[in-house]
Formats: sequence, C-alpha cells, structure tokens
Amino acid sequence: MKTLSINRERLQADLDELSQIGRHPDFGIYRMAFSDGDMAGREWFRKRVEEAGLDFYQDGAANLHARLNWNEGKTPSVMTGSHLDTVPGAGHLDGALGVLVGLECLRCIKEEGLSSDHPLEAVAFSDEEGRFGGMLGSQAIAGRLTPESIHSAVDLDGVSLTDAMDRVGLNAMDALHARRHPDSIHAFLELHIEQGPILDKMGISIGNVDAIAGLFKWEVSLIGTPNHAGTTPMNMRNDAFMGLSEFSSQIQRILDENGSARTVATIGRVDIQPGAANVVPGRVEFSLEARDTEPQVLEDIANAFRRALSAIARRRGLMFEFKVLSEIDPVKCDSGIINTVENVTKSLKLPFLQMASGAAHDTQIISSIARASMIFVPSKDGRSHSAAEWTDMDDIEKGANVALNTLYRIAGGRI
Amino acid sequence: MKTLSINRERLQADLDELSQIGRHPDFGIYRMAFSDGDMAGREWFRKRVEEAGLDFYQDGAANLHARLNWNEGKTPSVMTGSHLDTVPGAGHLDGALGVLVGLECLRCIKEEGLSSDHPLEAVAFSDEEGRFGGMLGSQAIAGRLTPESIHSAVDLDGVSLTDAMDRVGLNAMDALHARRHPDSIHAFLELHIEQGPILDKMGISIGNVDAIAGLFKWEVSLIGTPNHAGTTPMNMRNDAFMGLSEFSSQIQRILDENGSARTVATIGRVDIQPGAANVVPGRVEFSLEARDTEPQVLEDIANAFRRALSAIARRRGLMFEFKVLSEIDPVKCDSGIINTVENVTKSLKLPFLQMASGAAHDTQIISSIARASMIFVPSKDGRSHSAAEWTDMDDIEKGANVALNTLYRIAGGRI
Repeated sequence: MKTLSINRERLQADLDELSQIGRHPDFGIYRMAFSDGDMAGREWFRKRVEEAGLDFYQDGAANLHARLNWNEGKTPSVMTGSHLDTVPGAGHLDGALGVLVGLECLRCIKEEGLSSDHPLEAVAFSDEEGRFGGMLGSQAIAGRLTPESIHSAVDLDGVSLTDAMDRVGLNAMDALHARRHPDSIHAFLELHIEQGPILDKMGISIGNVDAIAGLFKWEVSLIGTPNHAGTTPMNMRNDAFMGLSEFSSQIQRILDENGSARTVATIGRVDIQPGAANVVPGRVEFSLEARDTEPQVLEDIANAFRRALSAIARRRGLMFEFKVLSEIDPVKCDSGIINTVENVTKSLKLPFLQMASGAAHDTQIISSIARASMIFVPSKDGRSHSAAEWTDMDDIEKGANVALNTLYRIAGGRI
Repeated sequence: MKTLSINRERLQADLDELSQIGRHPDFGIYRMAFSDGDMAGREWFRKRVEEAGLDFYQDGAANLHARLNWNEGKTPSVMTGSHLDTVPGAGHLDGALGVLVGLECLRCIKEEGLSSDHPLEAVAFSDEEGRFGGMLGSQAIAGRLTPESIHSAVDLDGVSLTDAMDRVGLNAMDALHARRHPDSIHAFLELHIEQGPILDKMGISIGNVDAIAGLFKWEVSLIGTPNHAGTTPMNMRNDAFMGLSEFSSQIQRILDENGSARTVATIGRVDIQPGAANVVPGRVEFSLEARDTEPQVLEDIANAFRRALSAIARRRGLMFEFKVLSEIDPVKCDSGIINTVENVTKSLKLPFLQMASGAAHDTQIISSIARASMIFVPSKDGRSHSAAEWTDMDDIEKGANVALNTLYRIAGGRI
C-alpha cells in the first residue's frame, strides 16, 4: 500500500519558529494559558493555518481549529491535535509538536489533492498544562465544564480564568458553547512526546499508546512525638519519619505483589515537623501517588498502602491519617485506532512499542465523547517540562508520518 | 552517717518566683541571654544571694557567683550551678533548677553553721542555651574563648554578642578575663532535669550521670534525577528519597551492630527537591546525627553510616555527599564524684540509675579544667525546651538533698 509523507523541512521550520515565541533568553519557553506568550503563539498558528489555505475556527473555549474539507459539521470529523500552551520554563515540543504535526498532516493531504470520507481537524486545545486547572479546552469540547467550574478557576497568583480571558478579549463563559456532540467527531488522535525514558532507552521511534494511566494522589500524615534527639533512647521514640521510611521501603514490595509492570508509585513531597537536626520528628506529611492503567490494580495498591501504613503506625505508636487529593480513572485507547497505527507502522517498516501513557493528556478527556488514541515519539532521557526537552528530528518525522497515514486511513481516505 | 536536708518550701518559693520572670502570658518563659527577661532574672538572683548573706560576684562573662567561705580564691572551691537563661518559650526548670538548688545548698550549709575544707560557689553561667552559640559562660571560665570568637558571635536576628552585652552595660571582651585557673576549682557538680524519658518511665528519682554523650552531626546529600512520576518506570528511576528511605531503615541495624545501648541516631530535617507530588525526587538533603558516650562507638557508627550510604547510592545510581557540621567528643564524669553521689544516695535510701546525659551541659565544658559530674532528676514524659516541662517537687527535693550532701562531702565538710 502506498504511504504519504510529511514535509520534514516545513515541519522543522514551524517547530523552530514557534520555539522562539514566549522564549526567555535563559530559561526556556513561557506560554502559560492566555499569557502574552500564549496569545502570540496562537496568533502565529492562525496565520500558518490561513497561509495553508485551511479553514480557521476559534471556539468558545479559545480552542483553535484548522479544518480541511469542513462541511458545516454535517459529517463527523477526524480530529487530531494537542496544545500550544506550556508550563513555565518549558521545552519546545510538549503540546506544540502534536499541534504542528496535525497542521502538517492537513497541509499534506490538501497539497496532494486527496479526498476522504471525513473532514479533518487539527486542534490546539486551551490550557492543557493547568494554569487554571488543566485541560480546559478539551473539557469544554467534551461538555465537562460548568458555570461554577469556570467561575472558580484561578491561577497560582490568584488571577481568575474570567479575568485572564477578559484581558485578551475573551469571555470565559463562552467556553460552555464549545461543547461538541459526540456524533460530530469520528475519531481523535494525539501525537505527543513520551515525556518518559522508555522509547529513548529502547531505541524505538514509535509508541502505540493503548491506555492512559489513572492515578490516586493522597496526602498522608504520620503523627508521633517530637522528642530531644540526644536524650530519648531509640526504643522510647515515636519517630514519624522512621515510620515513613519503613513504609517507603515497602513500596516496591507492594507494587511487586499487587501491581503490573506498568504500576508506578511516588513519594515526591515530604514535610517533617519540627524539622530540626536535634529533634526526633514528631510529624511527617507526604504526598503519595500511584498510577496504573487498570482500575482494579489501583484499588489493590490503595488497599495495600492503607494496610501497610496502618500496621507501621500501630507498631510504632504513630497516628495515621490520609486524605484523597485526586483520583483519575484510567482510560483505554480505541482498539480500532491502535490497530490502524500498528498497520501503518508496519507498512512504514518502523518498529513500534505498544505502551501506556503515564502522564495525563487531552486525549483522556476527548475519549469520553469519541474513540481516541495517541502516538508517542521518544523523549531524550525522558526529559520533559524542561528546556532540556529533546527529540531527534528523525523520530519526529517518523512519528508525523505515522500520524499522517493513520489519520488519512481513519478518515476513509484512499490513495 | 547524718545527712543534711534542704528547705523544700524555700526552694519551691524560689522556683515559683523565678518562673514568673520573663514569662509570656500564653507561651512559656523568655529569658534568652542578655534579653530583658534574662537581665530581670539575674537581678532577682543577685538579691536572693545577698538576702542569704552569701558573697555575690559577677565575673567578666557575666556569670553570677554566690560564694560561701570564700577566701580570695586561695583555696580551691567546690562549684555547683547551671544557667538562668532559657530558650524561647521555655519551661521553668531547665537550668534554673540547678542554679536555685545550688543557692539553696549554700544557704543550708551557712544556716547550719557548718564548716568545710573548701569554699563553695553556686554559679549561674551566661548563655548556656545558645542565643550566641551556647555555653558562653562556662567556656569563659574554662579559658576557651578568644577575641575572634567573641567578636564573631551573633544571634539569629544578626545582633552581635558585643552589641547585646553593651546594651545592658557589659563589655563582651571582659569575658576573656573570666578564665579560672584549674587549681582554683576543686570539683564541679551540676544538677539538671534529665530532659529525656528514662527516669520518669522507670520511676526513679535520681540519675547519677557517668558520662555526657558526644556527637557527630552531618549534612548529607543524595543526588539522583528528577523525573516525571507518571512516565518514568520504577526500574528507570534514580529516586533520591528512596535512597534516603533505604538508609533510614538501616539505621537501627547499624546501631545494633556497632553501637551501645546508649547510642542514638536521628534524621530530624529532610529537604526534598523539587518537592512536587508528581516529580520523582531528584535530590534529598538531610541532617544525620548520632550520639554515644564512647569515642570508638561514634567512629564505628560514622564508618558504618558512610558504608551504608555509599552502597545505597552506588546501587541506586545516586551521588552521595556529606559534610560534617559538628563533632563533639564524649566526656566522662569524675569517678570520685560519681562514687560520692552513689554513697549519698544510698545513705538517703534513694534508688538511683547510673546513666548518661544525651544532651549537652556546661558540665562538659567545666570538665576540661576540673573534675566534674552531674545529677539528673526526672522530666515528666521527657519533655523539655517546652512550657510543658515538669518535675514533681518530691523528685526535686530528693535531687536537691543528694546535691547538698554530695557537695558538702566533696568540700570536706563534717557533720
């Protein structure tokens, strides 16, 4: 079967140009949602869409749509895309790559004069990275926003979403009108950098994502007694940090016994009180999160964590408390798209790895209204959310070609 | 053998009165060195000394001396005492008890019209608690101060020792003249609350201290790689906190294998970077201190800690660094005084426990120029450096009687 190819030089030029927008001279890229950098990136993208002769559409949530063969929404579209906004001090690929590959795919199909059963859309979703909570644009399209959620969204500096959008001439409440009917989307595909080390370590260019991990995140407290570190014998202590250390040392065992090869668990934040070298820790508070692609695994891990923490607390004379900060269900990707990605990859003679996404993406929101899946390309050393983010252009080209041929096939295109 | 008894009501009245000086209405006592509270406490003490008909002497380091049978320093004195200064928010016993018991002992011996071979001194040492580093007064007497150490001493607010003493009419450089010749002190005995739980848990009123623990305190860094907690598989992590947890879980084993029943080790402060729930810790910095009364044990523990940390770092792909923040040698108490305390305690028909001091005291400084030892009384639940500090008056009375009879015997007194 004949395959299509993207224009590598044009894609690279787009990536280079966009990487200069919002760039700090020393510290990476700053295009947080509705900031000046983000607005400049959006304006640049609009011009690229229009230059390419594609239809440009901005919905109520300020999602930007490049459209090919659009027929007033009468035919369900094949949608691709990602986000242009960044974390502070970001690299040039997280989000941007998926939007620019989507644009490039539509340009190629248009240039080749190819026809397909379904219109194509390349979307840049608003605020994926979470200045105002994250995945604002995809949630708007999936109909998950409410007037309350819009009104209560604020950034870390206390600026409200409403004010931030008003500052750039947008009405936040319009996001409620961005909702798309499930029948209007035939399928969704997002290309993204892996943001993890697996593909890079294995030397494989294509990740065929079959699920996006769910997670639970707890805030755990172990409460003992703060005592003088010189005068309190080891066997008369209720050392809260020793309780945490014992638990932490059991995490791998708990994952081995209850988890899958994909399960991860992390203690990333620890606060010890009173926190002086000469005082036995009287209290520790720490974050505990675990991720897996199977709901049952997450439940089993959570139960095992609770049992371990309770046992340690009881034996060490500590109090144990926890509260659930967040719980996100795992999402399975669409098996039809997974198969198509696999077939395309084979026809392009590229090795691929079927894998999970450990990070959250707009895809998991869109999957609630449309069949959806993802393609990963390697992240050098797994680096992400960092100016050191890097993917070889060879890998980008391969990923973009897989995306192009997958989108065209899903859209019912014929060569 | 006949024994002497202190005046319990008078001692209790002194404790009650002094506990009101520097007291915050809600939060304990504030008599940090050379603060208004400290100066008021000193003035109150001077009046008590003069009321008792004892000689009052203030040396260059602002140590306050109550003296009985003083003969211009021609005969070596038997010295007792502790400190009147407190940590912020302190209880009423730490330091103050030893000073007031010393004063009460001298008053009793004077009232009884008893004679002894050696003059007696009850001393209130300046800045034991460390507003300007700690043990200023005892270091001055032991000849350990230098012009440089005096000039460079500052408190946490940046106020210099020189300015703080100048504010209350004292010249800090005079502390150099407080040095005492070793021949001028026949022996030193300090009574103090235990500041730990041992006597209270065992229901024993008297601790006969045979050594003051030495310690080493390190600042340790384990350096790994900060990675995305969702996308980085467990076997591709260099999790600095997991390294710390593994080490921390080995501390008890290391103490069991290398330490004594008295060895303690504590991780009291931990700083995790970047410290976000969804980022694998890339770096931990933590305090690590260990205490014992034997130099060889401290050396063995330090070696075992280094080996364990190196092995964990190597296996987990972490870098391991540490620096020594402080090292204090253990001090043995004088066996002659220990024996006298034991004999006095037996003659008073009191159970006692031979034990170590895990906390630092002026005694360990004075021990460098004179034979020295300590008596402990129980601390309720081991509480100290807290307004919740408490010792039953029965225990205080017993401790004071042991101190009185011990001091009188050491001074060559006869009944």
